Amino acid sequence: MPGPLTAPVRQSGVRAHNLALVLQTVAKSPNPISRASVAGTTGLTRATVSALVDDLVAGSLLTELAPPPRTGAGRPAVGLALAPYGPAGLGLEINVDYLAACVMDLTGAVRHRLVEHADQRPGGAAAALAGLGALAARARALAEHDELTVAGAALAVPGLVTADGLVRVAPNLGWQEVDAPALLRATPALADLPITVDNEANLAALSELRAEGGSPSFVFVSGEIGIGAGIVLDGTLYRGVRGWSGEIGHITVYPDGRACRCGARGCLEQYAGQEAIGDLAGAGAALGIALSGVVNLLDVDTIVLGGVYAPLLPALGPLIHAELAQRAITAGLAPTRLRAAALGADAAMRGAADLVVRSVQDDPAAYLSLSRASGL
Amino acid sequence: MPGPLTAPVRQSGVRAHNLALVLQTVAKSPNPISRASVAGTTGLTRATVSALVDDLVAGSLLTELAPPPRTGAGRPAVGLALAPYGPAGLGLEINVDYLAACVMDLTGAVRHRLVEHADQRPGGAAAALAGLGALAARARALAEHDELTVAGAALAVPGLVTADGLVRVAPNLGWQEVDAPALLRATPALADLPITVDNEANLAALSELRAEGGSPSFVFVSGEIGIGAGIVLDGTLYRGVRGWSGEIGHITVYPDGRACRCGARGCLEQYAGQEAIGDLAGAGAALGIALSGVVNLLDVDTIVLGGVYAPLLPALGPLIHAELAQRAITAGLAPTRLRAAALGADAAMRGAADLVVRSVQDDPAAYLSLSRASGL
Repeated sequence: MPGPLTAPVRQSGVRAHNLALVLQTVAKSPNPISRASVAGTTGLTRATVSALVDDLVAGSLLTELAPPPRTGAGRPAVGLALAPYGPAGLGLEINVDYLAACVMDLTGAVRHRLVEHADQRPGGAAAALAGLGALAARARALAEHDELTVAGAALAVPGLVTADGLVRVAPNLGWQEVDAPALLRATPALADLPITVDNEANLAALSELRAEGGSPSFVFVSGEIGIGAGIVLDGTLYRGVRGWSGEIGHITVYPDGRACRCGARGCLEQYAGQEAIGDLAGAGAALGIALSGVVNLLDVDTIVLGGVYAPLLPALGPLIHAELAQRAITAGLAPTRLRAAALGADAAMRGAADLVVRSVQDDPAAYLSLSRASGL
Repeated sequence: MPGPLTAPVRQSGVRAHNLALVLQTVAKSPNPISRASVAGTTGLTRATVSALVDDLVAGSLLTELAPPPRTGAGRPAVGLALAPYGPAGLGLEINVDYLAACVMDLTGAVRHRLVEHADQRPGGAAAALAGLGALAARARALAEHDELTVAGAALAVPGLVTADGLVRVAPNLGWQEVDAPALLRATPALADLPITVDNEANLAALSELRAEGGSPSFVFVSGEIGIGAGIVLDGTLYRGVRGWSGEIGHITVYPDGRACRCGARGCLEQYAGQEAIGDLAGAGAALGIALSGVVNLLDVDTIVLGGVYAPLLPALGPLIHAELAQRAITAGLAPTRLRAAALGADAAMRGAADLVVRSVQDDPAAYLSLSRASGL
C-alpha cells in the first residue's frame, strides 16, 4: 500500500468523476438536497448515486441531515449536505509584519484563525518559516481536536513563486530562492502534509472570486508594504506564463521618480505602498494612473481594493476615479467599479485554505484513497 | 426555406459535430489524409466518415487528391485535403491612411489582396465605408471568378467595437457610434453578406497566433497613427469584458506629459505613435516603459511588434530591452522576447479573413445549410 505522501491509488476514472460530480452537486445546492434530486441533477441512476453517497458519507465528506418535521403529505426526504467534520484545508500566510494560519472546513467555514504580529525580516526565511510552522502545527492540532482531517496546506507569500513552490524572490521579505515547503516540513507536525505555495495576491483574488457576485473579470489590488494584484479573467485566475502576473507594485508611474527597492525608478509601490500612503493624495493619484493603464490594457469593469486600501476606499476612491475619468479611454463609455475587498486582511489566508478545500471537492476519490491508505 | 440571411437550419447536433470533427482532422493534417486515417484519428466508423466526407466534398469543403503513383505493395489511398475552390473569407481593413481587402480560401492562402492608400478622415465614416464597400465588391468578384464562395466578411477597425459590430469610437478616424456593417451593406454586392467587425489589433494578434510557433501567451503591439494591442493568453485572444482590451496607446507614460487626442496627458501614443516616431530614442524609451508595465502585470514572455514597429525593431529593440531590464521585476529571472510581426502590415486584414475561414471550419454544417438554401 502506498504511504500518505505518494500519489494516491486512483479508483477507476469513471467512479472518480462521478464521486466529484455528486459532491459538487451537493456543494452547489443552497439547501440540503435529497439523493433523488442529486440523481435528477446529475443524470446518474438512483442506485449509482446511493452507492457514491454512501462512500462520501463514510469518508466524512457528506452528512445526512435528519428530515424536517412532517408538514404535509408525502415522505420527507433526508437531506445531504457537506460535512463540517471531515477534510479541512490549512491556509497559511507570511508577510513582512505578520504570520497567520487558518483552518477551513469543507463547507467553507473558517474554524480556527491564528495571527502573530512581528517583523519577519530580521531572522530570514528559515526563522520565519519555523515560526509559521509552529503556528501551523497549533492550527492543525486545533483542527484535529474538532475531528477535522487536514488534507493539505497552502501558503500565501508576497513574492514570485514557481509551480513547485520555490519562492524565487520576495523583495519585501528579502527572500531569494527559498524552498518554502521544505522549510515548513521541518516542523515535525507538518512533515506528512502536502504543501503548495502561491502568490498572496493570487490567493486573495481567489477568495474575492468566491465572494464576488457580479463581474467574473476583475483585478484585485492588495496594498501592504508591497503592492500585488490578482487578475481574474472570465472567472479564472490568470497566473501568467511563469506564474508571476500581477506585479502591479512595480508598474512605472513616474519614469524619473523615486528609487525603488527593485532597482527601478518611479514604481507605484514608492507612492502607494503602506510606507508611502500617509500622503493620501499622492497615493490615490499614483494608484489612479496605474489602474487607468490596467483598465486600458485589460478592459476589466471592476477593481477590488484590499489590504490597507480597503478601509481607505472613501478617501482613495474619488482620487482614483478622477484619474480613471481622464486616462481610461473607455471612461466615457462604461464606468469602472471600485469596491473594497469583502474579506479584508484575511483574504489571502482564506484563499490558501480554500485552494485545499477545492482540491478535495475537485477530486474526492484521491482524498478517500489517501485517507484510507493512511488509516485516517 | 430560410433565406441566406436568416439563421441556418441546423442538422442534428451530432452530425454537425462530426462534420466539424472530420473537417478539422483534415485541416490539422500536414499532408493529405485517407478516409481510413480520419476514422482512426476521430474514432468514428469508416462508414460514418465516408458519408460525412461525401457531404464535405459535395459542398466543396474537401477535395480528393488522386493517389500517388504506386511505389510498393498495397492499395494506395486517395488523400483528402481542404478544397482551395470552396468557401472563402473576405478580410477588410480600414485605417487612417488606407483601405484594404483580401480573399482567403479554406486552406488559409490569400488569393487576392487589394489596397488603396488615401486619407480616410475627411469624408467621414459613410464615405470611407462606401470606398471600402467598392473595394470589397471588387475582391468578391475576383473570388467568384475563381469559383470561390465568399462565406462572410470581417472588418478590422482601429477602435472600440461592440459585440454586434457597432464602432463606439475610433479616435484617430474621428468616428463615433458608427454602424459599420450597415454602411458596408449599402454596397449592393455586399447586401447579402454576414459581416462582423473587430478591433484591428485583436485580428492581427489572431494572425500572429496562427504564425507563432512558440509561446501561446503574448502581447501583439501594432504601431500605426494610433497604437493598439492584441492580448493572447494561453492560446486564446483575450478581448476584455466589453471587447475593449489592448488600448495600450493610452497607457500613461509621463503623467504630466503631452496632451493626447483622447483628453489625457502623457499617453504612449504621443511618444511612440507613427507621428512621433521620428524621435526614435523617445519612442523606444516610452514603449519600453509601457511594455515593462505590461510584463509586470501579465507575465507574458513574448512581445510581438507590428505595424511601423516591425521594420524598426533593430533600432527600437535595444531601447525597449534597456527599459525592461530596469523596470520589469522578472527581468533578472526570465527574459522577455521581442520579435517583429511575421505578417507585417497585412496581419489585421488576414486575421479578419481568417476569422471567417475558421467560422466555416468550426461549423461546416451551418455553411452547407446556408449554401444549399441560397442555391450556391
